[in-house]
Amino acid sequence: MRSFEVKNRTSAEDIKKLRLITAVKTPYLPDGRFDLEAFDSLMHMQILNGAEGIIVGGTTGEGHLMSWDEHIMLIGHCVNCFGMSIKVIGNTGSNSTREAIHASEQGFAVGMHAALHINPYYGKTSLQGLISHFEAVLSMGPTIIYNVPSRTGQDIPPSVIEAISQNSNMAGVKECVGNDRIRDYVDKGIVVWSGNDDQCHDARWAFGATGVISVVSNLVPGLIRELMFQGKNPSLNGNLMPLIEWLFREPNPIGLNTALAQLGVVRPVFRLPYVPLPVERRIEFVNIVHKLGRKNFVGDKGVQVLDDDDFILVGRY
Amino acid sequence: MRSFEVKNRTSAEDIKKLRLITAVKTPYLPDGRFDLEAFDSLMHMQILNGAEGIIVGGTTGEGHLMSWDEHIMLIGHCVNCFGMSIKVIGNTGSNSTREAIHASEQGFAVGMHAALHINPYYGKTSLQGLISHFEAVLSMGPTIIYNVPSRTGQDIPPSVIEAISQNSNMAGVKECVGNDRIRDYVDKGIVVWSGNDDQCHDARWAFGATGVISVVSNLVPGLIRELMFQGKNPSLNGNLMPLIEWLFREPNPIGLNTALAQLGVVRPVFRLPYVPLPVERRIEFVNIVHKLGRKNFVGDKGVQVLDDDDFILVGRY
Amino acid sequence: MRSFEVKNRTSAEDIKKLRLITAVKTPYLPDGRFDLEAFDSLMHMQILNGAEGIIVGGTTGEGHLMSWDEHIMLIGHCVNCFGMSIKVIGNTGSNSTREAIHASEQGFAVGMHAALHINPYYGKTSLQGLISHFEAVLSMGPTIIYNVPSRTGQDIPPSVIEAISQNSNMAGVKECVGNDRIRDYVDKGIVVWSGNDDQCHDARWAFGATGVISVVSNLVPGLIRELMFQGKNPSLNGNLMPLIEWLFREPNPIGLNTALAQLGVVRPVFRLPYVPLPVERRIEFVNIVHKLGRKNFVGDKGVQVLDDDDFILVGRY
Amino acid sequence: MRSFEVKNRTSAEDIKKLRLITAVKTPYLPDGRFDLEAFDSLMHMQILNGAEGIIVGGTTGEGHLMSWDEHIMLIGHCVNCFGMSIKVIGNTGSNSTREAIHASEQGFAVGMHAALHINPYYGKTSLQGLISHFEAVLSMGPTIIYNVPSRTGQDIPPSVIEAISQNSNMAGVKECVGNDRIRDYVDKGIVVWSGNDDQCHDARWAFGATGVISVVSNLVPGLIRELMFQGKNPSLNGNLMPLIEWLFREPNPIGLNTALAQLGVVRPVFRLPYVPLPVERRIEFVNIVHKLGRKNFVGDKGVQVLDDDDFILVGRY
Repeated sequence: MRSFEVKNRTSAEDIKKLRLITAVKTPYLPDGRFDLEAFDSLMHMQILNGAEGIIVGGTTGEGHLMSWDEHIMLIGHCVNCFGMSIKVIGNTGSNSTREAIHASEQGFAVGMHAALHINPYYGKTSLQGLISHFEAVLSMGPTIIYNVPSRTGQDIPPSVIEAISQNSNMAGVKECVGNDRIRDYVDKGIVVWSGNDDQCHDARWAFGATGVISVVSNLVPGLIRELMFQGKNPSLNGNLMPLIEWLFREPNPIGLNTALAQLGVVRPVFRLPYVPLPVERRIEFVNIVHKLGRKNFVGDKGVQVLDDDDFILVGRY
Repeated sequence: MRSFEVKNRTSAEDIKKLRLITAVKTPYLPDGRFDLEAFDSLMHMQILNGAEGIIVGGTTGEGHLMSWDEHIMLIGHCVNCFGMSIKVIGNTGSNSTREAIHASEQGFAVGMHAALHINPYYGKTSLQGLISHFEAVLSMGPTIIYNVPSRTGQDIPPSVIEAISQNSNMAGVKECVGNDRIRDYVDKGIVVWSGNDDQCHDARWAFGATGVISVVSNLVPGLIRELMFQGKNPSLNGNLMPLIEWLFREPNPIGLNTALAQLGVVRPVFRLPYVPLPVERRIEFVNIVHKLGRKNFVGDKGVQVLDDDDFILVGRY
Repeated sequence: MRSFEVKNRTSAEDIKKLRLITAVKTPYLPDGRFDLEAFDSLMHMQILNGAEGIIVGGTTGEGHLMSWDEHIMLIGHCVNCFGMSIKVIGNTGSNSTREAIHASEQGFAVGMHAALHINPYYGKTSLQGLISHFEAVLSMGPTIIYNVPSRTGQDIPPSVIEAISQNSNMAGVKECVGNDRIRDYVDKGIVVWSGNDDQCHDARWAFGATGVISVVSNLVPGLIRELMFQGKNPSLNGNLMPLIEWLFREPNPIGLNTALAQLGVVRPVFRLPYVPLPVERRIEFVNIVHKLGRKNFVGDKGVQVLDDDDFILVGRY
Repeated sequence: MRSFEVKNRTSAEDIKKLRLITAVKTPYLPDGRFDLEAFDSLMHMQILNGAEGIIVGGTTGEGHLMSWDEHIMLIGHCVNCFGMSIKVIGNTGSNSTREAIHASEQGFAVGMHAALHINPYYGKTSLQGLISHFEAVLSMGPTIIYNVPSRTGQDIPPSVIEAISQNSNMAGVKECVGNDRIRDYVDKGIVVWSGNDDQCHDARWAFGATGVISVVSNLVPGLIRELMFQGKNPSLNGNLMPLIEWLFREPNPIGLNTALAQLGVVRPVFRLPYVPLPVERRIEFVNIVHKLGRKNFVGDKGVQVLDDDDFILVGRY
């Protein structure tokens, strides 16, 4: 089910060059459907501030809380409206090989530039199973493999990455295990993006990572652009640390969702099982914004501490 | 769940001007999945020969045999690859208002230029129910209403069309009831496309129809373009009649599917409940092609009579 | 995907004996989900008053407004709670052969006693296509074929019924074309149920029909039981006519939905595209109830004329 | 969407008494659909050998590789055919609260006796999010909470379990963290099942666990029945260890799937990303069977070493 139209031709090489990829947040309407207007606005902020790629429906974008038709629709929407300005990378991975195949076929059919594939989390499998899983989807188009054992319960070992790296669609690895692992891959000629905002400066400038697939760039895209493009900058990196630490005190995207709502760029709507950070944390965020400078953050409204009652939590949508 | 991006802005006025819209066939791989490569090729034939719009997943395109995610994916694919050259009209209608709402939201989100909406076939409803059904979707974007009582079991009467015609998204009506009905609408300033290939010449040149939403244009797009654009031409219209009559001897798209397979432009794969025409009819088609001229038909292979064994019928896909 | 457990073994012969089958209404909660408590109560009324079978998710039960998982769940629920007292016949038909296959497999897997299969409405197909469609599902278990051209746009001709009648799973036909057609089938040894409440008395007592698949029995199950079991009764039949005529003035189940809400046995919730009958009709219904006797109707609350504001119409659910 | 029919009333107390619950394997046909006949046969082996409950579509049963409609169908099938003989516990958990709500509603509607709920794996959430997630489903019926951080990436801490333990539907915890955690819960009056076959003997007889939710009982149900009912038996426990160790060398259910295929009770069909154990391991299994005694294992065919070519791996199904 391939299409060879010009609009559907992106090479893995095009993906390998990206230094700043944002795992973009999915905003919601009060009934839990996508807030496309807010989403479009987030996309413009990313493009304007220098992000070169986005992950649609990643863990940050809460792909695991979407139905597949919502997910593919959002990918198609991004391709149509923003595909000329930014690379659209669909998180069409799944712990079910069937779903990963189906979603990747559909994602490439609607024009996504690359797929992000996770190893089978929760269900897990053997090393041979991992290779079979990835091989089932690699034929479809440019692919980034995503390793985050703290979520999946299973590390993708270098032997698996190396086994699939011969495939011409293999663009590289989003690696969360740390910078030593990154250096190993770089030494073997494998492209790597850091998946940890707190390590990405060093990953990029000291360990050979190509760039970052970032969460914090949802908030301060211009600063992360600077961090990835303008050379070593421990001072900027240091200034960002309080924000990054704040962001990951609870499982992502809880912090991000809370932050974007307080910045006034998305409605304060959470799809369960995510719930907002408590008020103490929400106050901390406002202080962090003031310290780092409101102008460095997305949006142009004043940052505010939202009340518990301002948040809407949706279980059925 | 609206997006206001430039790429998502088409007006009903843009749709009202289209004279030749093809209800494009959906070709399949032997396992029943979409054959996107063949589909892209059909699209190029349409664009090259002057079709100005396509219906994706209409009754001709067998939308009723698609899952909704397949359907929306195909719309997104068309928008991405061909949306600059042709208007993409998604058949996001359903006999379930919920499905029509959901599909239309998704279709517009992936950038379709207009929606085609049928009245609730099979389930049917009251006149007030019809109006409520159409009003539930008209807010989303440019819309063509489709009336084909021989399929739906229920005529959409002029009173319903008039009631919803005030809506600025109402582009017009695809009308299959006949040319007198068409004239009535034209007299009231309502845009109409003929939904009957055998009546479209007169509809266009004698009854005021804007154009046609055509099945036969899948086969001879250039001739139908001529029929809709070059003025009254009873001679061409007469020459086309044997083809058109052949095409509709069994419920559409049985004839079309058989014809395109024999022209070598799609694989001879049928999703059940459709089955190919019997061999006598298949021989007739080859004769019709020779008489009308192979060059007027899509594709560049010789037309051939396929054997019963050449066809693949799929029930699970 | 067959199961041969005792609980999954029903023969077509068991189905052929049923005289009163009710096409049961599906009641809703205000948010559009199933109101299972009200449904269970309707089921008890049917069982208590002598219905021998139910159609789950028929056109009356608005199967076309259900997702397939809702539909199969409702079948499974009926089997589990009521399968010992009444035959559960799932409307697992579809105009898509794929869907009909999938739904029938699932329906039999959860224990339904028989399937109801419609011909492919709206999409339609050739006679050979009809036979292929029905043959694709007949192997799975006892099956009733449903012919209602006023909804489907296509009559199932006797030649098709006869072709598939050799199959041992073929239980019979729900026929809406009229009593002459019924007699023809009876003469050929094919079991038939009338699908028209207004003709069912004569169908049963003068034309050889086995019984009725009834809508009006939702309202007055005891009287329809009497009509089908106690011999010719033109007087009772005549008394029922005003109710039956009232019930079908608008496409079913609009009248039924309105009636059951006014009898206080279901919440006044409509899934679009159905909307309640206007107030004049609602007043008529109360008069009909009083004339025929409240005690003959289901429920034990007083019948009342509901206000427009009492009704909830849901498009998203 | 509750039903209060007798058949839908199971209390948490009924669940709390179960000592041997098998996380039953789901067998497949060569095209990847369920092999219901084989499944029914596995169910009879469980019932005959004394299992008191089954988990349908757990991680062992590969619920994460099912579509939800397949999953609910399998639950409904179990309830209908075996619900009188064994408690049917549906794994209607998900990392998406929406899916967990929807699946649990449907599972209880088709009559399951209890739900198994996992915390949101992969996506993870805060402690408050965990509580909100579980509270969203606990109202529906008897519930077992499942803690397996090696799969989910996040431990459910005792504080969360205690917070939800007030709910009358809370039946207990399937705990994989170890026997000390189990003792803590037991001391607080919370019912616990060991989720680790290698620890279950001690859990039951030394730490107060009520019983086990077992994988190995798919293979040797009679022995595990003995282990859970007949008092402390370190000798039997020791004899089982080689089998249990063999079973979990690769992520479950890889070992179980391989074993059941070699015992001739299921077809050697794997849904990807699972692949069979290599031939060295397959030989080991045959030796283990001979040592422990073929008669203690399910099925009555000879155990055999399958060839690589005997296995069918399916990615699309």
